[in-house]
Amino acid sequence: MSHKVVIVGGGFGGLYAAQALRRAPVEITLIDKRNFHLFQPLLYQVATGGVSPGDIASPLRAVLSRQKNARVLLAEMSDINPENQEIVLADGRTLPYDTLIIAAGVRHHYFGNDHWAEKAPGLKTLEDALEMRRRIFLAFEAAEKEEDPAKRQAWLTFAIVGGGPTGVELAGALAELAQSTLPPDFRRIDTRQARILLLEGMDRVLLDYPPELSAKAGQALERLGVTMLTGRLLQEIEGDRLRVKIGDEEEIIHAQTVLWAAGAQGSPLGRVLADRMAAELDKMGRVKVEPDLSLPTHSNILVIGDLAHFAHDLARPLPGVAPVAMQQGQYAARLVSNRLAGRDTPPFRYWNKGNLAVIGRNAAVADFGRFRFSGFFAWLIWLFIHIMYLIEFDNKVMVMFQWGWSYFTRRRGARLITRPWRPAPGG
Amino acid sequence: MSHKVVIVGGGFGGLYAAQALRRAPVEITLIDKRNFHLFQPLLYQVATGGVSPGDIASPLRAVLSRQKNARVLLAEMSDINPENQEIVLADGRTLPYDTLIIAAGVRHHYFGNDHWAEKAPGLKTLEDALEMRRRIFLAFEAAEKEEDPAKRQAWLTFAIVGGGPTGVELAGALAELAQSTLPPDFRRIDTRQARILLLEGMDRVLLDYPPELSAKAGQALERLGVTMLTGRLLQEIEGDRLRVKIGDEEEIIHAQTVLWAAGAQGSPLGRVLADRMAAELDKMGRVKVEPDLSLPTHSNILVIGDLAHFAHDLARPLPGVAPVAMQQGQYAARLVSNRLAGRDTPPFRYWNKGNLAVIGRNAAVADFGRFRFSGFFAWLIWLFIHIMYLIEFDNKVMVMFQWGWSYFTRRRGARLITRPWRPAPGG
Repeated sequence: MSHKVVIVGGGFGGLYAAQALRRAPVEITLIDKRNFHLFQPLLYQVATGGVSPGDIASPLRAVLSRQKNARVLLAEMSDINPENQEIVLADGRTLPYDTLIIAAGVRHHYFGNDHWAEKAPGLKTLEDALEMRRRIFLAFEAAEKEEDPAKRQAWLTFAIVGGGPTGVELAGALAELAQSTLPPDFRRIDTRQARILLLEGMDRVLLDYPPELSAKAGQALERLGVTMLTGRLLQEIEGDRLRVKIGDEEEIIHAQTVLWAAGAQGSPLGRVLADRMAAELDKMGRVKVEPDLSLPTHSNILVIGDLAHFAHDLARPLPGVAPVAMQQGQYAARLVSNRLAGRDTPPFRYWNKGNLAVIGRNAAVADFGRFRFSGFFAWLIWLFIHIMYLIEFDNKVMVMFQWGWSYFTRRRGARLITRPWRPAPGG
Repeated sequence: MSHKVVIVGGGFGGLYAAQALRRAPVEITLIDKRNFHLFQPLLYQVATGGVSPGDIASPLRAVLSRQKNARVLLAEMSDINPENQEIVLADGRTLPYDTLIIAAGVRHHYFGNDHWAEKAPGLKTLEDALEMRRRIFLAFEAAEKEEDPAKRQAWLTFAIVGGGPTGVELAGALAELAQSTLPPDFRRIDTRQARILLLEGMDRVLLDYPPELSAKAGQALERLGVTMLTGRLLQEIEGDRLRVKIGDEEEIIHAQTVLWAAGAQGSPLGRVLADRMAAELDKMGRVKVEPDLSLPTHSNILVIGDLAHFAHDLARPLPGVAPVAMQQGQYAARLVSNRLAGRDTPPFRYWNKGNLAVIGRNAAVADFGRFRFSGFFAWLIWLFIHIMYLIEFDNKVMVMFQWGWSYFTRRRGARLITRPWRPAPGG
């Protein structure tokens, strides 16, 4: 019987782990609640009508179809039996493992204000992105129909909460939509009058970047017409009024559409690991892992990607970004292979190849340590890297052409208002 | 004040009418419940994961952005005040018209068996197509997980009800999916064992085509592995059992997945016209129109497209297909222009340029009156015509390349299982 590796989650971490094990003498089962891998860094493009869901999602079966030691199971892990070395699925069935790799990621959360979810949708799943897309384009439609100028301006005001990469990229794309794409389509409103507000609690956006790049990003956003509201802490959402704290003062901001780009919380599987095997969680619900990504109590259970809290020798834990997840996935695979061969593996180290955030069509900021870029050149690098990753998984060569086409025509063909989603019972 | 033309519905009929009025001295308002035009003939491709929703939908505003005499309104017509010449919108507002063109189409219906809707989803809207896609791909996933061979085969059995163009094209695409695209992706099931049953009440498929082309289509489907069940009338759906009548006999067919491609019924606006202005409806709820597409009682109200029942001098009323709607839209525009100029217009005549239905990747049947084709050449014609229409509306050049790419790689990248949606209250 060959060594059974069960991987939970088909994001960057889980998928890279599975692929890196392709030549290992193991039997891999990759389980995921969804049947596709999602290229999350481009979700904001779906939300703003730039690309279709199918452009940034690849069926997991197709990605792994040639890898004979891997099978894919559409299923949800709900519990674990450490004594029997098996996981329990939501339908009650069990699945035995020799090594378990948990890469279940994070979901967005509202710092204890769950009632904001209805008013301020987040951006973690494809359905989230479609809901955001629906609200953004419905807002312009409502403005076009509105007779009262004050109400019309409220419909044309969008508040984005959170100045991390998601918030910055979303603000840039939304500003460009209003400035360049939509003006010819409307008769009664001028979409260039749309106000896009970017709220950030700290004093600058893109906290993971050096301050001068944060400043550059802020300038690029302001050139696109985004209003930067840093140092503002959201207190409460009351209808279309946002109560915001600046220092000791309070301020009211009016916006019909509120988009949530702040706050993440570990998957509920983190809780399961805490209850069953005494794993320690941080305040975001992420699992604290050993230097080799394993649990302190169970060396054959690894946690990787956004759900892992990895802080060894670092000033702050590694950020929840795709490159960290990919490298942890590859490390987990190497660790499994080495153990089977009786070899040691040095602790995991993250090699930071750089950070990139895009601001609209022609500008980006890039931080490659010694080299820091901003503007058009950074944007070209961003485009190149993202297209390479897309092609790597699923030969999405067409997306590249589509982007080239959209770039020159400024079209955003995927701006469809489709019906709202409700999760199925238990779904 | 220029002449006000209100067009209800942005399908082929409404959009062609609006575009054909671009040089007329009129003020056009196109209203639609959705913000996009849908290329309905390719919906079955969305349902089988071949293309993304964005590939076959174009934002109405973008299509009409350069036409300065047209504006687009996201709204739903709920009633009409013929005395004031105004329509009433669902939000209570009114919209005055001088000429009203109703192109509200049809929806699928279940011949009085509305309880079948849950078990056998239809294919009229994008959301319908996504629901069908979800069920198709979930069925293969369930089969992969199922241990019991009988249940597994039930999951691999798909019944398509209705042998019109939609049913035939859906059966062909589904068969190809199971035969060519999916086999390498699954480990425990052989997707080539999938049974695809095409149920048709009459004795042949594609009733609008000459019998020899129906026969050719049937043969092509059988070569792809589709089981043709003609002369079968569906009586009842009980769980995964379909009770079917063949002559006086009854038969039970087991299928976990039932897809509805039969039956259409006019939009509820037909009922409004019947109640308010004594329009006559046929048993499908379509509005019987005069030779110039107007209502007998109101010559300034025209009904076009699938919702119109046009039977003058014809053995049977015109079918509900895109070319009829397009020509009626253009005719309606000509009629409006001629009336404004005080000119007469000869009655509407449908110029049948031909019928086309595609069966899988390489085969189609084409009926151009004197010329009848089947096989690869007919498929090439089908591809060419559909791509031309797609490009005409929205410059969807990329879709063409995408298809070329999929053709050679046999990939179907859009096979995502996304969550089911429920209509919003009142949505």
